[in-house]
Amino acid sequence: MQAEIIAVGTEILLGQIVNSNASFLAKQFADLGIDSLNQQVVGDNPERMEQALQLADSRADVVVLLGGLGPTKDDLSKQVLAKHLGVPLATDQPAHDKLAHYAEQQHHTMTANNWVQAQYPEGAHVLANHVGLAVGAVFEAPGHRYILLPGPPKEFKPMVLDQLVPYLLKVLGGNAVLKSKVLRFFGIGESALVTELQDLIENQTNPTIAPYIKDWEVTLRITAKAETPEAAQALIAPMQKAVLNRVGQYFYGFGDDNSLAQVAVHALSTHHLTLTAAESLTAGAFQAALGDVPGVSEWFKGGFVTYSNHTKALFLGLDEAKINADGAVSEQTAIAMADGALSKAEADIAISFTGVAGPGPAEGQEAGTVWIGLAQSGKPTTAALYHFPGARADVRGRAVKAGLFTIYQALNE
Amino acid sequence: MQAEIIAVGTEILLGQIVNSNASFLAKQFADLGIDSLNQQVVGDNPERMEQALQLADSRADVVVLLGGLGPTKDDLSKQVLAKHLGVPLATDQPAHDKLAHYAEQQHHTMTANNWVQAQYPEGAHVLANHVGLAVGAVFEAPGHRYILLPGPPKEFKPMVLDQLVPYLLKVLGGNAVLKSKVLRFFGIGESALVTELQDLIENQTNPTIAPYIKDWEVTLRITAKAETPEAAQALIAPMQKAVLNRVGQYFYGFGDDNSLAQVAVHALSTHHLTLTAAESLTAGAFQAALGDVPGVSEWFKGGFVTYSNHTKALFLGLDEAKINADGAVSEQTAIAMADGALSKAEADIAISFTGVAGPGPAEGQEAGTVWIGLAQSGKPTTAALYHFPGARADVRGRAVKAGLFTIYQALNE
Repeated sequence: MQAEIIAVGTEILLGQIVNSNASFLAKQFADLGIDSLNQQVVGDNPERMEQALQLADSRADVVVLLGGLGPTKDDLSKQVLAKHLGVPLATDQPAHDKLAHYAEQQHHTMTANNWVQAQYPEGAHVLANHVGLAVGAVFEAPGHRYILLPGPPKEFKPMVLDQLVPYLLKVLGGNAVLKSKVLRFFGIGESALVTELQDLIENQTNPTIAPYIKDWEVTLRITAKAETPEAAQALIAPMQKAVLNRVGQYFYGFGDDNSLAQVAVHALSTHHLTLTAAESLTAGAFQAALGDVPGVSEWFKGGFVTYSNHTKALFLGLDEAKINADGAVSEQTAIAMADGALSKAEADIAISFTGVAGPGPAEGQEAGTVWIGLAQSGKPTTAALYHFPGARADVRGRAVKAGLFTIYQALNE
Repeated sequence: MQAEIIAVGTEILLGQIVNSNASFLAKQFADLGIDSLNQQVVGDNPERMEQALQLADSRADVVVLLGGLGPTKDDLSKQVLAKHLGVPLATDQPAHDKLAHYAEQQHHTMTANNWVQAQYPEGAHVLANHVGLAVGAVFEAPGHRYILLPGPPKEFKPMVLDQLVPYLLKVLGGNAVLKSKVLRFFGIGESALVTELQDLIENQTNPTIAPYIKDWEVTLRITAKAETPEAAQALIAPMQKAVLNRVGQYFYGFGDDNSLAQVAVHALSTHHLTLTAAESLTAGAFQAALGDVPGVSEWFKGGFVTYSNHTKALFLGLDEAKINADGAVSEQTAIAMADGALSKAEADIAISFTGVAGPGPAEGQEAGTVWIGLAQSGKPTTAALYHFPGARADVRGRAVKAGLFTIYQALNE
């Protein structure tokens, strides 16, 4: 099977956005064993889109139009494909109802092109859009399959993973299924992880394993193909075990939608403990990360941003002269901040952050020097020293993740 | 002039890397006023590369092979282009010497393909690689210009900016220079902005104007081509004035590297005022955004995350019963939070955030309902109501930006 992705959008040709959707979809095709020898990008122009379809028809049997499903008059992918196929557009009633509801809720006057979002080339199989308004579609013609997918990544990715990949698996292999498990790690770099797992990675066949780094974390995707989900799971299990035997101390959870904030909040809820924080260099970013987790309000009631020595003393009930003497970036101050926050916020656990975000050193300490304090009622308060590499945003981002990992580890000992 | 980028690399077709180079180069073409109606991606296969060249020849007069200049046997762009042009490869002596020096230094045995890095299609103008080892090239044929560029971004980008763009400017217009000015807006959507500026956008020639949306902000890039930087600036000025006459109330600053946090902090420093914050739904994200700005510590000393009614009362010295009676998400509570923070943090200005981040309503109010309070010493405290669309992360992100814009506006009245 040969696939060809045609990304549609003048904004790609103008360099205003990067064509990362094509990369994501190409990766899925590769994982499925579907070849892809060419990709195209074409603007929102019906004649050139039709030329692109004809070219793809001549060399591929799966042809994807990616993007151009939105509500503006530039969004023409459905219309162009329907014309190419010689079929009219039909309306998907659930999507139409959703559009009507949205229009009413937003007091939004819908143009004609708005309603096209609920349409598909007649005879196609509709791919529902659970995030946005524009449906996708798969059209099976003799010798060719045509696929319509939305451009916004948060609509595009779930549609690909939840609907297109299962469809293609069915087409490809009768009963073959593809199952992936994502393992998430913090505190180890990608190259160090790859070194630890080198022989596993080099000898991979089924399952395959693929590391990926993002936002100072490494994830590892283990993917198996088998007749049944259970058989695929049985292939994944020993690989997962082998991986965790080697780098288990950095592991914190499963899944693409998981995060350090989620596992930290889950640990708090499991133990019925409330958390507070006193943040200096991270300036609220740790607490904001907690706030990303719906339902966190039961376990996180509030905390402090104490950027100066004076606010550290003022908000947390500390002795400003002692902070000045110890230094803002010190073990003593990290411990005092955690203790102070624990007491002032009436919480069960408190975490503190003080360090040098950079650029450049401060108080004679290098940028990247960070102390993270941890106070738990009934236990001795501790602080750990980190030296984070990178620019200001990296140091602050890594400190937030290290704080979340600290909470996760403290509650899972 | 029509350009077509052919990105070469099986790793792009497999989804292992994102084709961000094409985006970067497309942006340069757009800024130069060079049209680009199609892009291609093709693997490291000489037959398909030749087909891609033929296709590009049929519809563009500037044809770029991007990538495939490296030392491995998969890197074939130079060989394929030379064959397409019917010329042999010639050696660039400085690049050859650099390669020889590198080989000696690294005790590296050079394969035949290694030396191709110093070669170019005979008759081409060499583009030196000051970062890596593979030279690029521009070949002028009747009716077509062919460009070879390396794939690694750190080699590719300087070669484009320092050599290719000046070359193209010379080709395009003798001594022409290109100047851009970026205008940044908040509080207006891209489609509303485009509607306001529709005639300016539709009639654009020189300067061109291009809107772009990212992170809940809209930027507008005005680009002019002229004989001198001063003449380009003189073309930009009236367009800038026309734009600001229409949507000036949403404008907050210039430049790609600018941000709402920067202009807010700059306004604080201009007026010598310190800021604090009390955040509920944003949970520290506003203060973290301030913390992104180096040097903010002089104007932001600290603040509060008050997620529950109890911490609002406890940290800010408020009456918990009154908060419960007024509702956490209310004008009264937003005002009380700002007043409390101003007093407790000993600051000159305080901002407060309380609202429903979602998913789903809370306290009988829709997700997206947000009150932002503003207290300034010596002025009446106010609060403004917002209804932000989108998911939880959108609501919180928009609230943070609206808070920064509030500070900017309050200090620039």
